[in-house]
Formats: sequence, structure tokens, C-alpha cells
Amino acid sequence: MEFYLKASLKTSADPAAGREEIAKIMAEAEKGILEKGAPVGEGAKIKSWELGDSWIDVELTSGRYVRVHDAVMRLKKALAENLGKSQKIGIRGIEAETFTITVPSDRDLKNKKIPYVKSVEFKDGQLILTLEVGEAEMRNQVPDRILTLIEDKLEQGGYGAKAEHWNLLWESGDKELLYTNDPTEDMLKKGWLKRGSSRGQWIHGSVTTRLFRMFEQIVFDEILKPLGYDEMIFPKMVMWDVWKHSGHAKGIYPEIYYVCPPKTRDPEYWEDVIDYYKVTHEVPVEMLKDKIGDPIGGMCYAQCPPAWGFFQGETIATESLPILIFDRSGTSHRYESGGIHGIERVDEFHRIELVWLGTKEQVVEITQKLHERYMHIFNDLLDLKWRKAWVTPWFMAQEGIAGIAADEVTGTTDYEAPLPYRGPEGEWLEFQNVSINGDKYPNGFNVKSQSGEKLWSGCSGVGLERWTAVFLAQHGLDPEKWPPEIQKRFGGMPKQVKFL
Amino acid sequence: MEFYLKASLKTSADPAAGREEIAKIMAEAEKGILEKGAPVGEGAKIKSWELGDSWIDVELTSGRYVRVHDAVMRLKKALAENLGKSQKIGIRGIEAETFTITVPSDRDLKNKKIPYVKSVEFKDGQLILTLEVGEAEMRNQVPDRILTLIEDKLEQGGYGAKAEHWNLLWESGDKELLYTNDPTEDMLKKGWLKRGSSRGQWIHGSVTTRLFRMFEQIVFDEILKPLGYDEMIFPKMVMWDVWKHSGHAKGIYPEIYYVCPPKTRDPEYWEDVIDYYKVTHEVPVEMLKDKIGDPIGGMCYAQCPPAWGFFQGETIATESLPILIFDRSGTSHRYESGGIHGIERVDEFHRIELVWLGTKEQVVEITQKLHERYMHIFNDLLDLKWRKAWVTPWFMAQEGIAGIAADEVTGTTDYEAPLPYRGPEGEWLEFQNVSINGDKYPNGFNVKSQSGEKLWSGCSGVGLERWTAVFLAQHGLDPEKWPPEIQKRFGGMPKQVKFL
Repeated sequence: MEFYLKASLKTSADPAAGREEIAKIMAEAEKGILEKGAPVGEGAKIKSWELGDSWIDVELTSGRYVRVHDAVMRLKKALAENLGKSQKIGIRGIEAETFTITVPSDRDLKNKKIPYVKSVEFKDGQLILTLEVGEAEMRNQVPDRILTLIEDKLEQGGYGAKAEHWNLLWESGDKELLYTNDPTEDMLKKGWLKRGSSRGQWIHGSVTTRLFRMFEQIVFDEILKPLGYDEMIFPKMVMWDVWKHSGHAKGIYPEIYYVCPPKTRDPEYWEDVIDYYKVTHEVPVEMLKDKIGDPIGGMCYAQCPPAWGFFQGETIATESLPILIFDRSGTSHRYESGGIHGIERVDEFHRIELVWLGTKEQVVEITQKLHERYMHIFNDLLDLKWRKAWVTPWFMAQEGIAGIAADEVTGTTDYEAPLPYRGPEGEWLEFQNVSINGDKYPNGFNVKSQSGEKLWSGCSGVGLERWTAVFLAQHGLDPEKWPPEIQKRFGGMPKQVKFL
Repeated sequence: MEFYLKASLKTSADPAAGREEIAKIMAEAEKGILEKGAPVGEGAKIKSWELGDSWIDVELTSGRYVRVHDAVMRLKKALAENLGKSQKIGIRGIEAETFTITVPSDRDLKNKKIPYVKSVEFKDGQLILTLEVGEAEMRNQVPDRILTLIEDKLEQGGYGAKAEHWNLLWESGDKELLYTNDPTEDMLKKGWLKRGSSRGQWIHGSVTTRLFRMFEQIVFDEILKPLGYDEMIFPKMVMWDVWKHSGHAKGIYPEIYYVCPPKTRDPEYWEDVIDYYKVTHEVPVEMLKDKIGDPIGGMCYAQCPPAWGFFQGETIATESLPILIFDRSGTSHRYESGGIHGIERVDEFHRIELVWLGTKEQVVEITQKLHERYMHIFNDLLDLKWRKAWVTPWFMAQEGIAGIAADEVTGTTDYEAPLPYRGPEGEWLEFQNVSINGDKYPNGFNVKSQSGEKLWSGCSGVGLERWTAVFLAQHGLDPEKWPPEIQKRFGGMPKQVKFL
């Protein structure tokens, strides 16, 4: 991997008078300022330099350390200090005449429309990117972000790409599962629910709603109350700003429902749309597209990012740590893959989201307790066949990154259960997860602790549709065949509307 | 008001052979088929007719009854039957050569881009609309919809427009209100809530969340349980189709948050967006606009329309009536007027929505009981100063129609309360409503009763932000100064996060 930069440092006067000083700075730089912070011999190199009548040209190369755009800033600083004092010559700015990054690669890039990249050439096992950057971009690490991007792409797309990580942690004993129907089909027949007008959306009647509320009450009684979680209300429309801080802006675009506001509330502005509808009884979608604003964000996707606005920029008193909170105030929405699915894969769903925040030790301990509570619920109350696995952390997956975190503490545990109607070798559905997110969110949202110790956080989403999908798939729809404790908590079938 | 149509009925052969029959039909039509269903003398008139070698031209005028486009269909039918039998001549179709609607008006229209309207002329106190319609549009009542539209516009915009209706029904006695601060300001100082990243959006900490849940529990204990409401889960993303059936598609465009799906989940399609973000750390909103689909609907606005999908097209058994249901499964979103507001006017809010459905008598009786329960809650528990008024029905207001329903049973009751911090003559905030919607929804969604009797429905939204805004504005933030019953139900202050 090589960086190459031919830069021109603009001077306020002819630099010829300072030629000797410049030569000295250039000669000493490779073992001095251009190597500082790098392993010996791994700093940036000066390939050539020459003087013009109002500029100093310099050709730099580097590897991973003291990259050429950092190197040229260091040179500028040294030159400006010396020439300023002795010759009253200032350095006015830097122009990057040629900037290339060369990366070994077994293939070309698919997308070549990368900001600040003029061209991408694939030749002799190498990708050569020619950049078009100014001093501001060099100062703001744009070349570094481009390199990271390219390296991520090569890693993801290549034969040697890391597979989705999955490592079994625990598995329940085998159970005889007698019900083998698709519970969604059976629920539809019984009129428990109906399809909504949007894809992957359901309207729940009194029975499935009671099931959801029973599961919610179990989470209250068995987790939230005993572990001391406080309820909060997290926003459900999520602006780009939130996803920039949470990292989701790196990758969720294929899966979110976008939200656009009207450009104005002025009734006159909307008169033609309304007239169109009233005459044709059709919504003029093409007209609307011009009359609504740019997307300002999306509908709630992961439930915890918008909670962080409550803590953003704050320093939390030691006595308030750890913080344990939850939200159950609204729906989440994901654009799932097409085709008709049952309630196990929906675009609109209902989730109780748990978030905890504290020192690393606190977060790890809370996570452990939470796993114990879930184990109790799924074994002793719901009586499920299930297993636990250590997987690619959700926040990495949602940012399009595979693999696991290096520390093996930060990461996600998925709870999975088989759906008998999919056959003996059928899908194991993820119906629950628990994650330790390390210092990712406190860093991203700039949240500090009074003690100065780094803050960590964790989160866990209880998806009511997923619990229902797994519970009904394994136990069926007849409450009399459900585990006794669940029968008791369910409290009998509510009345249902009878259709002719 | 006058309709004028010059139409050409295309014949399968030269109609000359049938001239006598045609003359007879035309001569008898004005007192026959063109007057049927209209008051005597008020049917459509034939101004002239003549024969071509493969067509019959006819000039028609009419007022409100047997409008020209209906009249020409009746003529076509009569001509086709007679000429078919006697001359084996068929009528192949109708072309509208000239179609105008003339309406008295004191002014021109602002928006003249009306579908199927070629031109709008304002002259001598009249609007003359020239239509461009085919046989299908005439059959589908397009000219009628255009006339209704124009009449609505003239009524709404004119000096004689009906004002927003408001008629006092009940008022509580005067109360001394000691707290006169803006509760939102005080809540912000105490850290009870923080502004979300979107306009009119809040993140609620443990205290306001506990207030919301207390109000929710009051609604459960005092209304939902005693009156026998069953919980359902209504969808929260609302498609155009739902709003077409509910009537909202006639007018909500200035106030909804629009939802657009991604055009595809294909990761390659999104690679340039993701690359752009990773390099610049800015979301490329312009690029996104091209990559997302047309708006498919919006975020939940009124909470009950998407519930009707559960009943759509069904006939409900008598034993299931009345149906009493509620939903509290997510947020509602409205694009409110700009500027900074407190929690009394928000873009994202939390509401328990009650819906009831039955015969007219059942619906009226349930509504009466509901009013009694609210009266109890606001007087005996929340101890508010408030009043009730009969107003323009919400579904009319949301469709852009003023006035009240003619039957004086269908309609909306608003509950309003003063906000002392706005001063003695300040705003009375609508904090609750109850509506009888007549047969509007059962009609719109095609829901029938087993008995054949027309179904009616009602709805009522409990806005938790509004209850909180009114309660705190009148009683302040100190729980010790709250009514004793509320103190008890609130159960003491939850722990709050301490920030340095």
C-alpha cells in the first residue's frame, strides 16, 4: 500500500532566499518530523523537491505511518516557522497537484463514484486511486477515510472475507414439539389477526394483543422490576443526526423507511394536490414527490439510538450509575426482503428495548443478570427449545461490517429457536438478543462519567412478534396445551368479533 | 349553475335510415327519460340534434338534476335499443366535443390545474369551466366531482364561508389556579425531559414517563375496564389506500410526515451512498431522493383509520355488537406549524385511541357513558378547570370542510382547558375529544351488520401530552400540590439521572 503526493506550498515571496534552510529542513525531515510516531524507517519519504518563484514543490511517498497528507502538514509547519523568522516568508497554503493511493487488490471496484476520487484504475494486481483534495480535506483525514473504505470493500467482497460469525454458547435439551403447523396460517383462519395494507404489517385482534401484553407483563415482572429498570420514552422518528452519532448512517440505507416532511403547511401550496384527489379519487404520487422535502431521517429502526439524545454531551454523576432504562412507546419499521412472510418476519413490529449504561464492570454484570433472567423465562415459563450463540455484534452488522469485536466482551448474543413447521432441519429464528456495545455509544454521543472512567453500554430488544412466533410455533394455538404458568398469566381467551 | 354538453354518438352505420325513430326519441325525451327522477321541468334539455353519416350529434343543457353526462347516457341507451332492433344500427361510443360547467361566482379560482379541466374563465360573475372528458369519465361522475370541488372552494374561500363551529356545552366552575409558569420550561430546568433531534419531539425521562403511564392507568381503570373495551394493535404506517377509505386523502397533505421505502434492498444499489457517507461523514440527501420510492403513505396521523382494515368488507354478527376497542401501540405524527412549542403542541405524540362500532342507538349510548367517565376523571381525579364544546367534526376538519353535520348527533365534542401561564385571556387548549362519526367509516370501509341495520361508529383520542400539558399548567410540578388521588396514583417521584 502506498500514498503518493505531489504538493505545492504557496509562498508569500520568492523562496530562493531561504534555499539553504529549506534544504536543511528537507534533508533532516525523513529521520525527524516525517518519522515521528512511526516505527523506525516507516515514516514518509521525500522523493524530490524544488523551488518556484512563489512556491515550494515537494514529492512525498508513504505507507501506513505518517501518511503523505500528514507529512506535508508537518513540512509546512517547519518551513513556515523557519522561513517566517529568518526571511519573513509565509506559507499561504498547500495545493495537492497529484495525490494517489495504491492498494494491492485481486479485483476492480464496482462503485467508482467515490467523493474526492477522480479516477480508479485496476492494473497488475493493484488499485490506483487518484484523489482530488484540497488542504481542508487533507487536514480532515479524507484520504484516510478513503483508504479505510477501500480496505473494507476488499475485505468484504473477497474470497477471504470473514463469514458471519456464529459460535454456540448454550443449547436446551431436546423437546418433543407436537404442533407443526404454520401458526400465522392458523391465526388467520381463527381471525386472530389480519394483514395490514402495507407489506409485512398486521392488524392484531384481541387474542394476539393479549399475548403481546402477557409477554410484556412477563418482561416487567421477571426483568424490569427485579433488576430496577426505569421507563423512558424514546423518540420514534429518527433524524440523520442521531444515526450519524450511533454509526447507523454508515449502512442502514437499504432497510429503512424514509421520512419526508411537507415543504410547507400553506393550504394554497397543496390546493392542486387536493383538487386532483377530489376529482380523480387517486392520490397524485408524482405531484407529491415534488412537494415534499428531502428525507430528514427514517422511522425507528434500532430502538436505542434516539435515547442517547437524553445523555448527549452530559457528564453523569457517579451516584446515578449504572443507568438502567427501557422504552416500549412505539413501533419499529424495517424494509424486509420481499414476498409474503408470517409474523416471524415483519416490516412493522413491537419491541421493548432495554438499555444500560455504566462502567465496564457494571455493564458486564448487568448483562450477566439479564441473561439469567431470560434463561429463566424461556426455560421455566415459556418452556421453549432454544439455543444461544455469540454472533457478529448488531451494530457492526448494521454498519455492514462482519466479524466479531477483538476484546470478546463487546458483542451480541443471539437467542434462537426452531420453528417446527419449517421441518426438522428448518430455520432457527433469532427471537431475542443481548449486546454489550462497549464504549461505542458513550463515545459517539459524547457522554462522560464523573470519575473520568470510560462509560460502556448494553442493549437488548424484546421483539413481541418474535416471542409470539416462536412460542406459538412450538406450543400451538390452543391455550390448554400451553405451559401451565403461561395459561395462568394469559388469563383466558378474550372475546373475539364474529364475522359472518 | 349550468351544464352544457355537445356530444357525438358514434353509430355503426349511417343513422339516416332511423331518422324518424330518432326524432321521436328526441321529442319525447325531455318529458320522459331526461326528466325521470328530477322535479317537473328540471330535467336535462335537448338544444339541438343532427345526423352525420356515422354519428348522431346532440346538444344538451341541464341544471343540477339529470346532468348532461347522465342525460347523454340515457339517450344512448334509448337510441341503441331502438335502432338496434329496427335498423341493426349500434351506438359505438360517445365523444364529448364540448363540455362546460358554468357556476355563479364573485371571484376567479386560484388553482386552475384541475384534472380534466382544459380551461377556467372568470367573466361577468361566472366561472366557465371547459372540460376534457371521455365516456369513461362521464360514466364515473368526474363532472359531478368537479362541480362539488368548485362549490366547496367558493364556499370555503368566500366572505360567506362558514366559520369554524364552536358551541359551549358545559363549563366547570371557576378555580383559583396558583401556578402560572410554563410547565415545559420548568420541566426542562428539572431535567424531566429533553428536546429530541426533530421539531416538536421530546425524549421523556422517568418522571414524565411515569406521569404518562399514570394517566394511561386512569384511562384503564376508569374507562376501558368498566366500559368493556378490548385492546387491539392498529398499524402505525398508513398507506394511501387506508386514507382513501377514511376520507383523509381529501385533505391531510399539508400535515403528514410522508413515508418512502427504499427502491431495493440490493446492497450494490446503495454502495455509492454508503461510500459517500464513509468518506464525507455527511448523509447525501440529494442522492437519497433519487434512490427512494414514491411516498406510499405517511406516519400515523389520526389513529383509528388503520384499525378499519380488520373489519373491512365484513358482515358483523349481531351478537358481537357493539364492538369497543382501543389501541396504545405507538406514536402519532403531525407536521405542526413552525416555531418552538412546549409539550402542548408537538409533532410526535402518544395517544390511547378508543373506537366503538354498533347501531346508531348503541353508538350514541356508549358515547354518553364515555362523556360521563371523562367528566368524572377531569372533575374528581385531575381537578381541572375545563369546558366542553360542540365543534366541527374532526373528520370534516381533516378533510378541509367547515361547519357541522346536519343531524346534530354526528359530530365532535372538544374538551378544552385554560393554560394559566398564557394569561387570564390566554389560549384554551383542546386536550381531549369525543366524536360520533355516523356511518362514515362503516360506509367507507364497507362494513355491514348481520341485521342489515346501518352501522355507526365513534372514536375518542386520549393524548397523553395534552393531559400532561393541562394538568401541569394548572397544578404545577410539585407532586405535593397535586390532588390527593393523583398523588396516590403517581406513587412518588422515580429516581432521576443526575448530570454534572
